[in-house]
Amino acid sequence: MSGPNGSGPLAQIVGCGLVGGSVAAALRAAGWTVSVDDADPDRARRAVDRGFADNVGVDESASLCVVAVPVGSVVEVASSMLDRAGWAVTDVGSVKRSIVESLDHPRFVGGHPMAGSEQDGLDGAVATMFDGAAWVLTPTAGTDGEALALVHGAVVATGADVVTLDAAEHDRIVAMVSHVPHLTAVTLMGQAALRATADAHEPLLRLAAGGFRDMTRIAAGHPGIWPDICAENRVAVVEVLDEFLAELAEVRRIVVDEDREALLDRLERARQARLNLPRTVARPDQLAELRVTVSDRPGELATVTSLATAAGVNIYDIEIAHSAEGPHGVVIAMVDAHLADAYAAVLREQGYTCSVRRLT
Amino acid sequence: MSGPNGSGPLAQIVGCGLVGGSVAAALRAAGWTVSVDDADPDRARRAVDRGFADNVGVDESASLCVVAVPVGSVVEVASSMLDRAGWAVTDVGSVKRSIVESLDHPRFVGGHPMAGSEQDGLDGAVATMFDGAAWVLTPTAGTDGEALALVHGAVVATGADVVTLDAAEHDRIVAMVSHVPHLTAVTLMGQAALRATADAHEPLLRLAAGGFRDMTRIAAGHPGIWPDICAENRVAVVEVLDEFLAELAEVRRIVVDEDREALLDRLERARQARLNLPRTVARPDQLAELRVTVSDRPGELATVTSLATAAGVNIYDIEIAHSAEGPHGVVIAMVDAHLADAYAAVLREQGYTCSVRRLT
Repeated sequence: MSGPNGSGPLAQIVGCGLVGGSVAAALRAAGWTVSVDDADPDRARRAVDRGFADNVGVDESASLCVVAVPVGSVVEVASSMLDRAGWAVTDVGSVKRSIVESLDHPRFVGGHPMAGSEQDGLDGAVATMFDGAAWVLTPTAGTDGEALALVHGAVVATGADVVTLDAAEHDRIVAMVSHVPHLTAVTLMGQAALRATADAHEPLLRLAAGGFRDMTRIAAGHPGIWPDICAENRVAVVEVLDEFLAELAEVRRIVVDEDREALLDRLERARQARLNLPRTVARPDQLAELRVTVSDRPGELATVTSLATAAGVNIYDIEIAHSAEGPHGVVIAMVDAHLADAYAAVLREQGYTCSVRRLT
Repeated sequence: MSGPNGSGPLAQIVGCGLVGGSVAAALRAAGWTVSVDDADPDRARRAVDRGFADNVGVDESASLCVVAVPVGSVVEVASSMLDRAGWAVTDVGSVKRSIVESLDHPRFVGGHPMAGSEQDGLDGAVATMFDGAAWVLTPTAGTDGEALALVHGAVVATGADVVTLDAAEHDRIVAMVSHVPHLTAVTLMGQAALRATADAHEPLLRLAAGGFRDMTRIAAGHPGIWPDICAENRVAVVEVLDEFLAELAEVRRIVVDEDREALLDRLERARQARLNLPRTVARPDQLAELRVTVSDRPGELATVTSLATAAGVNIYDIEIAHSAEGPHGVVIAMVDAHLADAYAAVLREQGYTCSVRRLT
């Protein structure tokens, strides 16, 4: 099956937000012909104007239909698309079990790209969004082989790595690594804000330093998507929350009893797990963490990162830790371990204070 | 009272770790004459060699003694220093009530600089560590006025802002913004790691994206200091943990009942509080958050930050959000709001996709 210009397979995208726009752009960049539809026709038009798609509208001759609408609307839209044509249909919703069970159709394959939450809307869409990202697919025993192959091929064409999971397992995992952490960040931030007001603890939030800011960063996100996510993934979220509450109650016991050994054991296990947190993409076997003390002047960061470029060192991750949100900070950069010392030497030559720590 | 060279007041520092070394360096840079003592004489010698202090040893003619030892040893060391000479004594421990109550001496003023936790040991020490940082002092009704004035003057000389608090209030605040968040990060990370092992959920940690990484980053820290902190601040930590457990139980109820209104209300309140989280240092009245899509090639970050320098824009905070820890990321930079659009235009000219959001 090929597009009007004979340039490749034909895909239909429904919904031109951040993810839908990026899927369209990624498939088009991979040689597919792409039609885009959206409840807002202007938005679909803009996707074409930006070069993300070939046509506005629904092209029933496409082999694949990607439903990229909010999680609460997936079942309705995907169901209508399954009725409308003989294509394989997939979605990009962040909850899977309820959707897969409701649709229960051989030509539907549940999907969830683990990318794209950082910018809102079509303006943030890019063709490279999924390069090296994990993209979960949740086929069932009843899934048609050809439909699965079509969806799988499209996901690979976007540059993503397919991770195949049972839908319920997917939901338990995202409850653990995304939904419950989000609710936890919101709860911590809300509690701190309440204490700052209620107890007239004005200095409270002023003393909130880097660790607190890291832990509550996601609480600044838009609330709109969460009622649907919590409703659709209620069972798994409650299961993980219950376990988390039990673990925290045990931590409370450890603090009350001053059980130093149990506390150190928990801290050490968490530390090892955090240091070993895998990345989905090929990385150098060993990374090192470089900490560079910087002042808050314009150009400090540019100098530090430019020296990395000059030394041929790629910075895999970077953050600035402000010990107390002061003008003085520490740049924490993750770099190849075998280049870290050379980079540190270059930085020290320029007068920077820095330390290198190998991760294991 | 002046030092051997008549160059300024005389300070005695006991303990040459990260904080002690930085206090010595900051006071010396402000014209003080500084003696350093340490259980490890080599370390004290290195502090002198690095120009952080004038002399090794204890100079009883000093007007001020800063005890910069681990929180579990403060009472013993400060007590012996109070007996040894007539100086004002202060400490830098991260818990205050138990220390202030145990010492209960007119010449002792409890202190806690909210800075310096990002690098370990003397190698991370810098004279600018406290510039613009908050430094809590906890005088009591029995504190001698002259001792308080001496300690206050030294803190100001390091460049820090003094925040005066009741010791118990300080402890409740740090329980909320530091100790309980730390225990929470450790618990989340430990729970995820256990589930990844126990349920053979190998993909679990692979799907842990930016939000989870932010929330668990502090769990990678060294465990050693925490048993003392939890023991010394047990009452406040348990109080805040109990409140946190109650709030999380209420969130569980909201999820079970699908109480969308209550959930949105909590999310919105946390969002506003997070966006308005104050910084301790003078900042432009308005900051804007710039999000720039980048690939994982060497030099991308250097280009983005160098363009900021060229445009005269200071980056106050920066992080890379990897949507799925892929090679594709989003640089999130905090810049002056009135310069953000000009900077975004420069970035777009260079082919970057970016968006600007004003913080309120």
